[in-house]
Order: sequence, then structure tokens, then C-alpha cells
Amino acid sequence: MATEIERKFLVAGDGWRSSVTDHLDIRQAYLSVTDTNTVRVRLSGRAAFLTIKSAGAGLTRQEFEIAIPFVDAEAMLALRTGRIIEKRRHIAPAGLLRWEIDVFAGDLDGLVIAEIELPAETAEFERPHWLGAEVTGDPRYGNSSLATNGLPSTGR
Amino acid sequence: MATEIERKFLVAGDGWRSSVTDHLDIRQAYLSVTDTNTVRVRLSGRAAFLTIKSAGAGLTRQEFEIAIPFVDAEAMLALRTGRIIEKRRHIAPAGLLRWEIDVFAGDLDGLVIAEIELPAETAEFERPHWLGAEVTGDPRYGNSSLATNGLPSTGR
Repeated sequence: MATEIERKFLVAGDGWRSSVTDHLDIRQAYLSVTDTNTVRVRLSGRAAFLTIKSAGAGLTRQEFEIAIPFVDAEAMLALRTGRIIEKRRHIAPAGLLRWEIDVFAGDLDGLVIAEIELPAETAEFERPHWLGAEVTGDPRYGNSSLATNGLPSTGR
Repeated sequence: MATEIERKFLVAGDGWRSSVTDHLDIRQAYLSVTDTNTVRVRLSGRAAFLTIKSAGAGLTRQEFEIAIPFVDAEAMLALRTGRIIEKRRHIAPAGLLRWEIDVFAGDLDGLVIAEIELPAETAEFERPHWLGAEVTGDPRYGNSSLATNGLPSTGR
């Protein structure tokens, strides 16, 4: 079990692309979204994971990530609730930390979100010039909401 | 991924006890129960599993069982929906097959259910004298219903 502290931002422009060192194509969907937890299946590159997170829109959530066979993950997508989210995750190192910039495709085309995982809620980090408005804790930008409700109306 | 074919019966009396060769104490709870799937965490003896099953009350369901660390399973119980089910599972071999007789405890005290897993929907099997009414496909006796709704009123 891990405790995850991450902050999430919209992105203004393409300035982040020059910092990118790697990317990963991700398909994911939710098996369930309840008052107490979410269960997500993710195919990420050639790996696949089942991830259980405690509910809540705050900075800190309990997270359990379990590696599963890729073929099982593909079969589980059929049991999903909501849509399959497709995105390309770009990795941009930032000192000891790193930005992950998710460029969504399909129904969510046009949405770009940058996330940074922090060692503590109070951790300092540099804000690159391409960072837009913070959406940490905004339920409309949670992956489970994007899977269920689609693109926020102010997201474009 | 496995496809599970099992039949489920109430139990009349204690006649099954003489066939039992082993038992296992089980604690389990559901992380979610949706229209398309259920996600269950189970602590079974010293092992722990996360099990995803496709929805449906029929004989055949898709099932994915994933071994997880025991401490993670214990922590996941706190994220459950419904109650924790506690039961002692008795194993009674029957030729190439085996009966599993679940004696429930706690809120479900008094309930005893026998299950047999079959190699095919049409497979023949012997019905021991202690077998009661069949409840295969009866949603009231599904573990997710027992966790959410408790003991069926006709279950005693």
C-alpha cells in the first residue's frame, strides 16, 4: 500500500514538449467507482495493472497497485463502467521530481493535464512557464469523472 | 482468466461433517458490486486474493483471481462496501470433485451453504443425503448480496 500525494494542473501551450524524455501509451478504464474506492485497470506500454484507490478528492489517497497479466487486463476492459480513456503520457524530468503530461485522445481529445507526485504535501516544486490553472482536487478532472462524465465544459 | 461453473445448495443437518478432510477460515468483503462486475478481497488462511467476477447470476461467470499481500488485503477491508463476511470453509472430497461447505459466522450465523465446482455446465455429480434446496442463481444467496443485505429471511 502506498500513499499518493500528487498535484494536477491544466497546461497552456506546447512549451513542455522540449523537456520530454520519454512517453507511454495508456489505455485505462474503471471497473467501479464507489463512495469508498475506485478500481481501475490500466494497460501501460506492455505492462498492465489493477489499481485500487481510496475515495476522496484530497491530495492524499491510499493506493494499491497490482501487476496483472496483459491479456487479463484486456479482458477486464469489457467489464468496465464508463468509457475507456486513451492517453499518451509524456515524462518530463524536473530535478528529483518529474512531470507527467497526459495528452488525451478519443472522446477526450483536446484535454492535456500535467501531474507531479510529491514526497510530502508541503513539498516545494518549480512551476514551469507552461503550467496552467491548478485542478488538484477538482472532481471534474479526476480520471474516474473523465471516464464517466467525459470532458469538463471548461476543459477546452 | 477463468470461467467458473458452480452449483450452490442449502444444507440439511450435520451429515456432511464426517466427509470433511480440511477447513479454512475466510474473511472477505466487497470493494464494489456493480451492474457489470464485483470486486472482492478475501483473506483465506494465510493467503489473500483480489477476485474480479463478471456480473450475472447464471452458472458461468468470468473470474480473475489475483494473489495480493496479506497486509494489503487487511487494509483494503476498510474500503469495503457492505459487511465483512466471516465463514469457515470445510472441504469434503467427492471423487474428482469436492464439496465446499461454508459455515457462516457473525451477522450471518446459522447460514450453511454447500458449493461444488463443475468442469462443465452439464456435468453429472452425486447428491449427498445432506444436500438441501438448490440456490444456484438465487441472488439472495450470492456473497455480494449476503454482504450487502444480510441473511435471507428464508435462510434459517
